[in-house]
Amino acid sequence: MHRHSCHHPPAGVGGVTISRARIIAVGDELLEGRTVDTNSGCVQRALAGAGIPVVGVEVVPDDSDAIGLALSRTVTGELVVLTGGLGSTPDDLTREAVATWAGVDLAEDSTLRRRMTERWQRRGVSRRAGVERQCQVPAGCEAVENPVGSAPGLVGRLAERTVVLLPGVPAEMESLLPLVVALLRGKDLLPEVGPQRLWRTAQVAELALVERCAAVRSAHPDLHWSWWLTEWGCDVRLAMNAGGDESVFDQAAADVDEALGRVAYSRGDETLPAAVQRLLLAAGRTLSVAESCTGGLIAARLTDTPGASACFSGGVVSYADRIKVEYLDVPAEVLESHGAVSEEVATAMAAGCRRRLATDYALAVSGISGPDGGTADKPVGTTWVALATPTVVFARRYRFTADRPRNRLLTVAAALDSLRRLLETDDSISPWYPGDTWSRLR
Amino acid sequence: MHRHSCHHPPAGVGGVTISRARIIAVGDELLEGRTVDTNSGCVQRALAGAGIPVVGVEVVPDDSDAIGLALSRTVTGELVVLTGGLGSTPDDLTREAVATWAGVDLAEDSTLRRRMTERWQRRGVSRRAGVERQCQVPAGCEAVENPVGSAPGLVGRLAERTVVLLPGVPAEMESLLPLVVALLRGKDLLPEVGPQRLWRTAQVAELALVERCAAVRSAHPDLHWSWWLTEWGCDVRLAMNAGGDESVFDQAAADVDEALGRVAYSRGDETLPAAVQRLLLAAGRTLSVAESCTGGLIAARLTDTPGASACFSGGVVSYADRIKVEYLDVPAEVLESHGAVSEEVATAMAAGCRRRLATDYALAVSGISGPDGGTADKPVGTTWVALATPTVVFARRYRFTADRPRNRLLTVAAALDSLRRLLETDDSISPWYPGDTWSRLR
Repeated sequence: MHRHSCHHPPAGVGGVTISRARIIAVGDELLEGRTVDTNSGCVQRALAGAGIPVVGVEVVPDDSDAIGLALSRTVTGELVVLTGGLGSTPDDLTREAVATWAGVDLAEDSTLRRRMTERWQRRGVSRRAGVERQCQVPAGCEAVENPVGSAPGLVGRLAERTVVLLPGVPAEMESLLPLVVALLRGKDLLPEVGPQRLWRTAQVAELALVERCAAVRSAHPDLHWSWWLTEWGCDVRLAMNAGGDESVFDQAAADVDEALGRVAYSRGDETLPAAVQRLLLAAGRTLSVAESCTGGLIAARLTDTPGASACFSGGVVSYADRIKVEYLDVPAEVLESHGAVSEEVATAMAAGCRRRLATDYALAVSGISGPDGGTADKPVGTTWVALATPTVVFARRYRFTADRPRNRLLTVAAALDSLRRLLETDDSISPWYPGDTWSRLR
Repeated sequence: MHRHSCHHPPAGVGGVTISRARIIAVGDELLEGRTVDTNSGCVQRALAGAGIPVVGVEVVPDDSDAIGLALSRTVTGELVVLTGGLGSTPDDLTREAVATWAGVDLAEDSTLRRRMTERWQRRGVSRRAGVERQCQVPAGCEAVENPVGSAPGLVGRLAERTVVLLPGVPAEMESLLPLVVALLRGKDLLPEVGPQRLWRTAQVAELALVERCAAVRSAHPDLHWSWWLTEWGCDVRLAMNAGGDESVFDQAAADVDEALGRVAYSRGDETLPAAVQRLLLAAGRTLSVAESCTGGLIAARLTDTPGASACFSGGVVSYADRIKVEYLDVPAEVLESHGAVSEEVATAMAAGCRRRLATDYALAVSGISGPDGGTADKPVGTTWVALATPTVVFARRYRFTADRPRNRLLTVAAALDSLRRLLETDDSISPWYPGDTWSRLR
């Protein structure tokens, strides 16, 4: 796999600037195959944005010795982020294990105690057993109040490392993370960060993206390039060390913009459904969807983002053929003669959905996600995506080669990205891709 | 959090039986916050089923020194599973790092070479650069052919550990995993496993489940209990050491069955949508769904499982109110007077969906997922779930308190689990829960 890491050298502020981090994820549940450790990825992203690469993650059980051993393997000067084990039950041991490892005492933080007591009073609950432990702080650490839960974050300088303790509940961890980064920034512990840019794409192979950027890369050998595979595409990230000539970076970013052209659905963190929502809102247009093989997944993704109701009217999951006929006005004889997975049916679904649900655009998909249902003519993965506009219906045939869940996800991406491309090109009636078919609406 | 790990002591077969495992996940992308390490969870589950607990996971970059350091931290006698870094590009370094650490040579495996050559010929491709490296095997290891990709799995006894190397591509890793476990089993390296049972529940709090099982637990102090939170509920797992009296285990399992009663949607690995599909198929009944706040997510989950088309006809995503009126026959005046999130509208959506889509059952949901849209009367998280049967429409009000994605997921679980409970009780017209409302169909 083609990948270039992005290195941010320490900016040299007094020699105490953090230059790298290590994560220790604590929890029996992370070792039993039931809970996936998504916290480490959040911490990695937050620290990458702050210019600090994570060089390792260790997952350990709720066990003082295992936590201590992992701490002893960290290196002087590193930022050590521990997640999990800050609750109030006896198997939450992280606070104590850190104090033991660092050789410092745990003591009650009176400010924290007062805030917690106020919190209980606001919620009308009496003091709960075990919560006293959450007021205990290792000497040398300060507490960061948790906006959404009881366990505070803890930040301190221990054993020549900068140590951060965060609760394991993802929502609590995510709320505390920016507060902790701001606190480290305020203490001048983070390096200066140079400019960064992100482009997100779907429907393009990683190698094709690398090729598109080849000329810009040769012209700018000092910039840092990263290629990240996402659930349905690939992201390109460009970064420059702090202190470089930002006009050079801006020129390079402009050149990447041009090289990627319509391929990038987002020039930032925006997701593909959010990009579609933004474009529809800006154009004052509405969308509906008619789904067979994706079974509601396109609609589900479109409504992941709050505010979808302003441009997304709804859809029809036409899993059974009779629903294609009755709800989407697909002629029964077209279904009969061409089969459900065909250009004719996908086109009729899109046109029918647009008319019946009275929206400006309609997306329709019909395909064979697998593992069964394939034939010699129409192997598993064969999928038609159609897009009805106020004047035209476009259709495109795909042949995905992954398993059922991934074929469905790639279909969602193909449908949303097709509409995104159309909306970004002023609603022209030119086909999206060379070789696409299109027909005027009746 | 209340959790009890399940320990399987080594069965003592000649002292070489593996009693615990450690995972080393290799890959820069796992440290950059873009790719979540789902492989470790798969390995954990496969090994748990084979009676081997995983005691730690270390995530390291594509760097020989880092891989070597992680290997040096494993313990004599352990099973060490490395995932990732077995590809054919220069940044794939795991094979070489393992050989260096163990102090053994890498040599070409002639059988593997022959198989790979045949594979290329079958696919009509000429030998690709870099693939020679995939025929190299550390001395003492044997190759396990990869059913879905080129990089083989490698298994061997190195430095007094049992070492397994697996590719990082999830689909390849998952295909190889059972083959590797079978190979270890064949070599008598795995402990004997006692009986195990799993129950899966939704809509019940962890503590309530623990309480339901309290009497059985007191009666069987020697059995191993685990409680696992899932995306929308909690699983209970019961296990017994190998060599115990299995009739005791069977009695305990029967007692758990009775204690859980209708609460368990699955007595095995089955997912909730798969359980609903099984019950519908067994009853020869069909289902449709009308979704507002979940925006297609119920339908998407129902069609995750292949074969859904035999019982799931489709659905309507009625995000806009006019679609509730036009497609689901919700009277406009009911919408007007009660609002979209109301018992009256949810009930009308379910009844209309069932009639219009001509299915035996219809589920309907209408709620406020957040973050906006809440009022004093109907705060964020207020959600109505309705179920239309051939004779009756049930409705139930929920008040979820999580964030938007989780409120949506809990709504999916509530809807599917309600139908599951009804189908398991012979389609009686008694309400699902005390306090539910129900009305006869017009």
